[in-house]
Amino acid sequence: MRVLGIDPGLTRCGVGVVEGQLGRPLRLVEAGVVKTPATAEHSQRLLSIDQGLAEWIDKYQPDVIAVERVFADQNVLSVVGTAQAAGLAMVNAARRGIPVHTHTPTEVKAAITGSGRADKAQVSHMVVRILKLAVAPKPADAADAVALAICHLWRGAANDRIAEALAKQMGKTA
Amino acid sequence: MRVLGIDPGLTRCGVGVVEGQLGRPLRLVEAGVVKTPATAEHSQRLLSIDQGLAEWIDKYQPDVIAVERVFADQNVLSVVGTAQAAGLAMVNAARRGIPVHTHTPTEVKAAITGSGRADKAQVSHMVVRILKLAVAPKPADAADAVALAICHLWRGAANDRIAEALAKQMGKTA
Repeated sequence: MRVLGIDPGLTRCGVGVVEGQLGRPLRLVEAGVVKTPATAEHSQRLLSIDQGLAEWIDKYQPDVIAVERVFADQNVLSVVGTAQAAGLAMVNAARRGIPVHTHTPTEVKAAITGSGRADKAQVSHMVVRILKLAVAPKPADAADAVALAICHLWRGAANDRIAEALAKQMGKTA
Repeated sequence: MRVLGIDPGLTRCGVGVVEGQLGRPLRLVEAGVVKTPATAEHSQRLLSIDQGLAEWIDKYQPDVIAVERVFADQNVLSVVGTAQAAGLAMVNAARRGIPVHTHTPTEVKAAITGSGRADKAQVSHMVVRILKLAVAPKPADAADAVALAICHLWRGAANDRIAEALAKQMGKTA
């Protein structure tokens, strides 16, 4: 399974593609950012994000897209732009029939480091170890997107397995 | 000039098309809503909004799109969905090279009724008078979108005229 993690933002959207399955080593395919200049007009910045994310999706053909969940109270000043970038990620996925899942920053940190209150350096350190990299993906937004993809691979695969087992059991008892 | 006003929302996006120019009576072309079911998955709702707004734009070919400005503090619970709907309106405009302008609810109320603190009934009443309608556009979101388009026609046309006059003067003095 190939997962594209997207850490949404108006100035920088982190993107990270990770491949793998439960119980096997994960592999980093690619990581980077979709950037927009602060001097550009707002609708043009959104269009650049829309097109940039579309290119990543079309190039790497992920099976699932994991987007960081936006909260209304997380950062009042930037929440509108962040929510809009996340919305564009979701629409691009939905348009291509690719399932989208959201994970909170706390869920990502907990999945990667074992602590929901880990700092950026700890998450970055664990991303390097998990993916057996020489250096952490740069910039930080790219590393966050990779962490999101890992979180989804681990949580999603585990959830799918549980759902499958339950469905089987339901079938037997029915 | 033809303006498409969009009052963004995840459940209902109001849309209103108004035609006219400064100093001439305005004409309502069409008004309505793009709705999404609360039971649908979030990314599917955003995709429906994206497609619904695209249909309105392609059918009515507006010269300008006016979107209600979303504030991070206006309604914490729904701001993410509203911001995402507004973002999709902007991207659809930018993708077609149509200029987008935003107006705050206060600016719209002030332009239409003369008071930035007018209630919905007062705005609706003035929309009926300005456009010489038999009844107000329904539902309220459609009326809000029409008010937004009127606000833009009045403010925008006045601003354009000022900008044009200034540009001419600059040309003369240069």
